[in-house]
Amino acid sequence: MFQTFAAPSDASAIPERMKRLRALMAEENFQALLLPRGDEHQGEYVAPSSERLKWLTGFSGSAGLVAVTRRHAGLFVDGRYTVQARAECGGGLFELPGIAQAHLVSWLKGKLKSGDVVGFDPWLHTIAQIERMRTALAAQGIAVKPTRRNLVDVLWGKDRPAPPDGPVVAHPIKYAGRSAETKIAAVQKVLKEAGHDAVILTAPDSVCWLFNIRGQDVAHNPVVLAFAIVPAAGKPELFVAAKKLTREAQAQLDGTVRISPPGALKARVQALRKARRRVRIDGDRAAWWFLRALGKSAQRGDDPCVPMKAVKNATEIKGARVAHVRDGAAMVRFLAWLDRAIAAGETVDEIGAAVALEAQRAGSQALKEISFDTIAGSGPNGAIVHYRVTDATNRPLGAGELFLLDSGAQYLEGTTDITRTVAIGTPTEEMRERFTLVLKGHIAIATARFPKGTRGIDLDPLARRALWAHGLDYDHGTGHGVGSYLSVHEGPQSISRAGLAVLEPGMIVSNEPGYYKEGAYGIRIENLVLVSAAARPDGGDRDMLGFETLTLVPIDRRLIVKDLLTAEEVRWIDGYHASVRALIGPEVDAPTLRWLDAATQPI
Amino acid sequence: MFQTFAAPSDASAIPERMKRLRALMAEENFQALLLPRGDEHQGEYVAPSSERLKWLTGFSGSAGLVAVTRRHAGLFVDGRYTVQARAECGGGLFELPGIAQAHLVSWLKGKLKSGDVVGFDPWLHTIAQIERMRTALAAQGIAVKPTRRNLVDVLWGKDRPAPPDGPVVAHPIKYAGRSAETKIAAVQKVLKEAGHDAVILTAPDSVCWLFNIRGQDVAHNPVVLAFAIVPAAGKPELFVAAKKLTREAQAQLDGTVRISPPGALKARVQALRKARRRVRIDGDRAAWWFLRALGKSAQRGDDPCVPMKAVKNATEIKGARVAHVRDGAAMVRFLAWLDRAIAAGETVDEIGAAVALEAQRAGSQALKEISFDTIAGSGPNGAIVHYRVTDATNRPLGAGELFLLDSGAQYLEGTTDITRTVAIGTPTEEMRERFTLVLKGHIAIATARFPKGTRGIDLDPLARRALWAHGLDYDHGTGHGVGSYLSVHEGPQSISRAGLAVLEPGMIVSNEPGYYKEGAYGIRIENLVLVSAAARPDGGDRDMLGFETLTLVPIDRRLIVKDLLTAEEVRWIDGYHASVRALIGPEVDAPTLRWLDAATQPI
Repeated sequence: MFQTFAAPSDASAIPERMKRLRALMAEENFQALLLPRGDEHQGEYVAPSSERLKWLTGFSGSAGLVAVTRRHAGLFVDGRYTVQARAECGGGLFELPGIAQAHLVSWLKGKLKSGDVVGFDPWLHTIAQIERMRTALAAQGIAVKPTRRNLVDVLWGKDRPAPPDGPVVAHPIKYAGRSAETKIAAVQKVLKEAGHDAVILTAPDSVCWLFNIRGQDVAHNPVVLAFAIVPAAGKPELFVAAKKLTREAQAQLDGTVRISPPGALKARVQALRKARRRVRIDGDRAAWWFLRALGKSAQRGDDPCVPMKAVKNATEIKGARVAHVRDGAAMVRFLAWLDRAIAAGETVDEIGAAVALEAQRAGSQALKEISFDTIAGSGPNGAIVHYRVTDATNRPLGAGELFLLDSGAQYLEGTTDITRTVAIGTPTEEMRERFTLVLKGHIAIATARFPKGTRGIDLDPLARRALWAHGLDYDHGTGHGVGSYLSVHEGPQSISRAGLAVLEPGMIVSNEPGYYKEGAYGIRIENLVLVSAAARPDGGDRDMLGFETLTLVPIDRRLIVKDLLTAEEVRWIDGYHASVRALIGPEVDAPTLRWLDAATQPI
Repeated sequence: MFQTFAAPSDASAIPERMKRLRALMAEENFQALLLPRGDEHQGEYVAPSSERLKWLTGFSGSAGLVAVTRRHAGLFVDGRYTVQARAECGGGLFELPGIAQAHLVSWLKGKLKSGDVVGFDPWLHTIAQIERMRTALAAQGIAVKPTRRNLVDVLWGKDRPAPPDGPVVAHPIKYAGRSAETKIAAVQKVLKEAGHDAVILTAPDSVCWLFNIRGQDVAHNPVVLAFAIVPAAGKPELFVAAKKLTREAQAQLDGTVRISPPGALKARVQALRKARRRVRIDGDRAAWWFLRALGKSAQRGDDPCVPMKAVKNATEIKGARVAHVRDGAAMVRFLAWLDRAIAAGETVDEIGAAVALEAQRAGSQALKEISFDTIAGSGPNGAIVHYRVTDATNRPLGAGELFLLDSGAQYLEGTTDITRTVAIGTPTEEMRERFTLVLKGHIAIATARFPKGTRGIDLDPLARRALWAHGLDYDHGTGHGVGSYLSVHEGPQSISRAGLAVLEPGMIVSNEPGYYKEGAYGIRIENLVLVSAAARPDGGDRDMLGFETLTLVPIDRRLIVKDLLTAEEVRWIDGYHASVRALIGPEVDAPTLRWLDAATQPI
């Protein structure tokens, strides 16, 4: 849960690794080589055996890419990781020019000349990524070509971890709500309507959703790293080592799905091509390898599981409510403990708080895993949006400071994700005013009514309006989609500047506006909400949707300036707190209940 | 200004025209033929000599496309024109399947088989339109190929009007604010930075903006229908008949621009290709013909004039303010007259109102033209969003009804566009409540503060929120960009679900939320607003932008329910009315001033 990013123990090996890589590049006639952090499935989390970027550069963040030329190397990371990249790779071997694709392209243009060739592993980049890169570099006469093998793998010897072999378990119908058979039939209907003969699924969360299986191949997200091919008619084929399947998983898949070893995938794709089948692949998700392997058989089309998975069924929705009561009780016990500890003058630091919270979640016995590395930022650390506490940065929760805590859990019933910002001691008026502006944005989303067809992009500004009026804003989206005991970041829906997916009833999305004052404090208020049909107001002539808030944890009353709220906003916060008390009260011990009663009084 | 859409006088000729067209299609081996309403410049308005769609089908709307196969013909129009299309082309020769590209494609798929060829005039479709169509039909084995000549032109004989030959006049620097030389230099800088040797300008408003010229080739928009080629260095070439240039235009262009006859364009494009020049063309604006003619010389890139033209310079902004005072005075005189006429029991109908308003505008002696056909909808006609009154639909403004009036003017100083909805007699409470909801949306835009980088798409929902809360909405964008004595619809900026262009200080955009109750009434409140830097509030940490409202005409106080407004909203409306009184009062006669005083009292 807590990783330190001091230089890795084998940092001294990195210059030698880079030298050997450049020798290999020269042998194979590449003037530049790209190495991203992602794996063959392009997910947010990768297995240790796929941590090539870390092995080569020392950089351990969750997103990034290194471009290596004969004499230069540029490490491209986003704003969250610039500090970490400097700490981990600051020895002079790497330039750190910032991440946007435009930067990478202009960096490459600056280092290369017409006729040069940029190499990439065809498994580690999506089709769309490579197409964009090729278009951008073509005008300069720079070619972008796949390598025959991954050049880092050639060098990475004995110290390379084994591939993940966690068990593949069944995700029972009592949680999934819908059988693999009916899901497969729905996917096959989409294929038939589009005139496609098959689809290749490359996203692990799609594969897990479709077959009702879960795994332990990566941290925090219970996915299986596996590919699958679903034909328009007949049995789908899942490429996974049979020995990883538990007996229950085996029994559940038996008769529905054909299990093949991962090594059989290539031959199967080639056979589809040879048979001139029309095979659907998702250009934004599938590795470029598939495009080449399929040739004229390749048919561009979205992964059909994505929109289906995003709309939760009745069982998943019921599960989400159960998960949020359980998770809310753990959070409430933790917050009550924290207030008591602070009041008693105990010293609590960021790591201590995060450990205590995880213990409360584990106490339910139902915790499968936390859903991401907890973000526990006190004072100025709270202003670092994707802060991860380390031994080096750990600081006590000081009086007069804000403490921002963003965390979540994986339960069989569902995935949670919650942020609370709490006052340690007495907050300043500025902190309270800005907290209240963030709260106004949060309430604007929570209470939004919007017509069918509305997209997340259409709601994002409602969360910012109160901040904008005061010359303030935040540099992240307002909300992301969330899976059902699956990935904590799961599209296509989002509430953001890029949220073009239409919000459909049954989708779960986070509502998390914030405000960050660099060097001082961070504020974020995050609940998960469920898109739901809304009652049509008297005289209304449109079918309207709205959100049901799932997360059940008090919002710190000490940070709310009531005078800044409208009567309607006050009604919302009081009503929300009344629900929290009613649903969480029965789940907690007497001292916690006393705290909860006080924390949920009308403001 | 008022067109009737009864069947055209030569409706009887249409079956014969279709028959001859099909014979030609057979001769040239096309199984289908596309004919859009647009001309070689893809603008909203076309000259009579380009009204091919009307000649062939009888349809006279401003947007549409006919697809003709050997036995079927589908006329594709959008929601505004379905009624009109039925009236004009309802004789059984044409199917009317609705407009979206998807519909056209699926209609073609239903009529054609693999191996069939769809023909199109390469001058009448953009590059992007043809590429989308080809992609969509490729899977079915249907080819989309250019015709060698326009097949309608082959048939359209003596009755075809002559091409427009209105004069090309200079748009003096006192209105344009910036010389053609500096604009050309700015475009050339963009070309050099992108590594392009030249750009072909195909949009008439770009050509007019760049060279500071205006014309009379189409209705309402003072554009010249002309192409231009701007090289990265050296003199641009404008393709226009020299005889169309006034002496002033000639003098202004002399030394800066090379004038060539329109017929020279093809040879020039071919020469660029032969010289292997890298020539920029805008895939969303340029005719597909250019892509083919340029071959490998074609470089995709946005028309560089578009973003420059959208940001008005100080002279244009000053001009816009002058134009809005003049136009506001005309509107106020009209509204005062209307109120008096209604109070006196006179009968005023839609046509009479529109004529009276145009007379007020013409009275200033500065009116060049109205900026679009006035929309004057009383009662249920107001609910038809793009209603154009005709002799057949003209109705009196009845007591207890709403009257929606959307109009605008072209002045040398700038282009205006305003909608007011006024109560005739006593409005119902429902009308007043809904008017107030629309007003709340209008005020939300007028008062919005937003950080740099905000796009129109991010503001659109603010205009809808109050309506959404009551289960209501409107099916059009909230605002469009406006030119400076140029097109009344001019991008790239808009406030809409598609408004991805960033709002920059100096852009002018309309603010026009609405509400339409079918069969009953329509409400729209439209002002033009100017994107401006906003003062940074105390404690704010971002550079903020906001809008300055340009339009100066009272909003009907009789339709406002004060109790539904917040104190801030009341402040805005009272402050707005105070400005209107202060700026328009000195421009109007005594009886009008009395009306204005009453109409701008605090609510």
